[in-house]
Amino acid sequence: MASIPGFWAVVPAGGAGTRLWPLSRAGHPKFLLDLTGSGRSLLQTTVDRLEPLAAERVVVVTGAAHAEAVRAQLPGLGPSQVLAEPSPRDSMAAIGWAAAVVERLDPDAVIGSFAADHVIPDQGAFEAVIREAAAVAHDGHLVTIGVEPTWPATGFGYIHAGEALPGAATALRAVEFVEKPDAERAARYVESGDLRWNAGMFVVRAATLLDLLGQWHPDLAAGLRAIAADPARLVELWAGLTKIAIDHAVAEPAADAGRVVVVPAPFEWDDVGDFASLATLLPTSVGEAHHAGGDGNASGVETGIRELRVLGDPADVTVIDGGGVVVPGAGRRIAIVGLDDVVVVDTPDALLVTTRARAQDVKLVVEALKAEGRADLT
Amino acid sequence: MASIPGFWAVVPAGGAGTRLWPLSRAGHPKFLLDLTGSGRSLLQTTVDRLEPLAAERVVVVTGAAHAEAVRAQLPGLGPSQVLAEPSPRDSMAAIGWAAAVVERLDPDAVIGSFAADHVIPDQGAFEAVIREAAAVAHDGHLVTIGVEPTWPATGFGYIHAGEALPGAATALRAVEFVEKPDAERAARYVESGDLRWNAGMFVVRAATLLDLLGQWHPDLAAGLRAIAADPARLVELWAGLTKIAIDHAVAEPAADAGRVVVVPAPFEWDDVGDFASLATLLPTSVGEAHHAGGDGNASGVETGIRELRVLGDPADVTVIDGGGVVVPGAGRRIAIVGLDDVVVVDTPDALLVTTRARAQDVKLVVEALKAEGRADLT
Repeated sequence: MASIPGFWAVVPAGGAGTRLWPLSRAGHPKFLLDLTGSGRSLLQTTVDRLEPLAAERVVVVTGAAHAEAVRAQLPGLGPSQVLAEPSPRDSMAAIGWAAAVVERLDPDAVIGSFAADHVIPDQGAFEAVIREAAAVAHDGHLVTIGVEPTWPATGFGYIHAGEALPGAATALRAVEFVEKPDAERAARYVESGDLRWNAGMFVVRAATLLDLLGQWHPDLAAGLRAIAADPARLVELWAGLTKIAIDHAVAEPAADAGRVVVVPAPFEWDDVGDFASLATLLPTSVGEAHHAGGDGNASGVETGIRELRVLGDPADVTVIDGGGVVVPGAGRRIAIVGLDDVVVVDTPDALLVTTRARAQDVKLVVEALKAEGRADLT
Repeated sequence: MASIPGFWAVVPAGGAGTRLWPLSRAGHPKFLLDLTGSGRSLLQTTVDRLEPLAAERVVVVTGAAHAEAVRAQLPGLGPSQVLAEPSPRDSMAAIGWAAAVVERLDPDAVIGSFAADHVIPDQGAFEAVIREAAAVAHDGHLVTIGVEPTWPATGFGYIHAGEALPGAATALRAVEFVEKPDAERAARYVESGDLRWNAGMFVVRAATLLDLLGQWHPDLAAGLRAIAADPARLVELWAGLTKIAIDHAVAEPAADAGRVVVVPAPFEWDDVGDFASLATLLPTSVGEAHHAGGDGNASGVETGIRELRVLGDPADVTVIDGGGVVVPGAGRRIAIVGLDDVVVVDTPDALLVTTRARAQDVKLVVEALKAEGRADLT
């Protein structure tokens, strides 16, 4: 199928990914990493996923520190397609800047905003959802993608969907955005069937987004349009922009005003938030030959490997009676004895050992290193 | 105090120490390693411990492959004090060769044999025991040192002690040597008070040892004496020597013949058999500053470090809610999150992750690597 006429893909590439330390570092963040063993980084995979929909109409917004790395990973993008933020100003400024740039090139353009560090394996289902979202957005709605929850996640916000949008294939009116719930509430949400994960994907006319923003944050909308009109004023104006997330700046008030539509997404989506999440994206290596015993032909199964998932070469891992997620990233042999669901991430200057259950707490290591004055390791 | 006149220390330096992989390797075995953070290897510490008793009368017996490393670690020893075995022939040949060499230098000599890879922290108590053992041995007994068991170990053999030896300070007649027991039997042994760990330390006249050996293995005794008489025949004769442990060759039959005496050893002794054993020899690092949280002054205790023991620099280890034994041996930061009693051993080419409870199974990794054809990593 052809790309969607007038559709632009906006890719905000930010976030430190501290729960993926020591793979993800401030200077080499999550979106630049190949976390699935595909040979392509999450950023590259995101752009690959969008090109069938947007053709060459892709804009990446990233921090100035990462602009060079982003351009190196995406050599097909022209210089004006990588917007380098002078400083972090949160997601509204990032996406709004891209919207203002696109608006000047095509006042009727519809933009779709997609984080650079998420994984969506089913390309066909993704394209179908975005095509419907773009059509609905063309009519003036702010469209968000509501991922069907597969488990009662407490780490994501939810979208409460209401009635069907008249004339639309699957789109529903959004009742409200709901903050990250506790475990009990999350279980109720999943049961209800009316609540979907807010995956942070928005599809909307560039002009509509900026006009909605203008209703609640007129200075921010005006500043972004002024930067797009005269890029020479970027540094001067950027520092004064309000630091606010797009959800709070536009999505939530627009939902209250009845302007938001949800397109249900029946596809698998993963934000690769931590090593437990990463594990589900990796193939199991149970069948690999990890010899034990003296006979030289015992297989991994016989030595008691359970659910071993390796990002890297499984031949670098020897498991005796155990399993988990292993990243042999320093060219060394890693041996695991008698530990289930362990997480071992080996890099040239830092090693992490934890469990899947404690994967969220890896960010505390990054905090500890910073407090210790070892930001060079973060 | 002066050294014991006519007393020679024999140090068999062998054994692969595969349960201490990846620190201990075939080419760099346990006895050459500093496993206590003292700055001296186990071999050096063993010789340091013996010099007050034997002065310069120390003989080390080791495999030809390690002779150069042994000489480098013990520059005070002359060339004839390091005996290099052409091939492994078990402990009777090793200790018997040294006995035969010493016998030629001093027909009345008493030798004490002490493994090169054990730890005895209380020097004073050790010296007192060996002085008594040497005196008893001078009278023609085969003396073994019976370590008072502190827990029902199943990994050591035991010595059953009987009546007091007339005229001796603490020495007892040995009833028999007992094989490694199961857990239930080990508990009974410890309760009885009559059974002591066989720490493999023997004190005996060199001539008595060889004469006893001659009773049960005349060819072996003759071969060892022939090598001592004409070192040029070493390679020719060595290959034909019977491969047998000193316990089976001499100690057990001598006990049956009423020729063995036990000197009780009221000191701490450790064979550093695995990383669980090693842990008990290392200082706890709970008080070290492992910062967490944003305030920059939280201590290790506050971040939930429990019983962290580090062989190396504790500053290389960051622990969030966990503990165990950590060897930062590759100059990298090691972070542990949410794992208690974990064992992490980091070396430049191999990394081990296990638990204290599974420390014995580390030898299975070495077997697996050999079966895989990666003996270079063992």
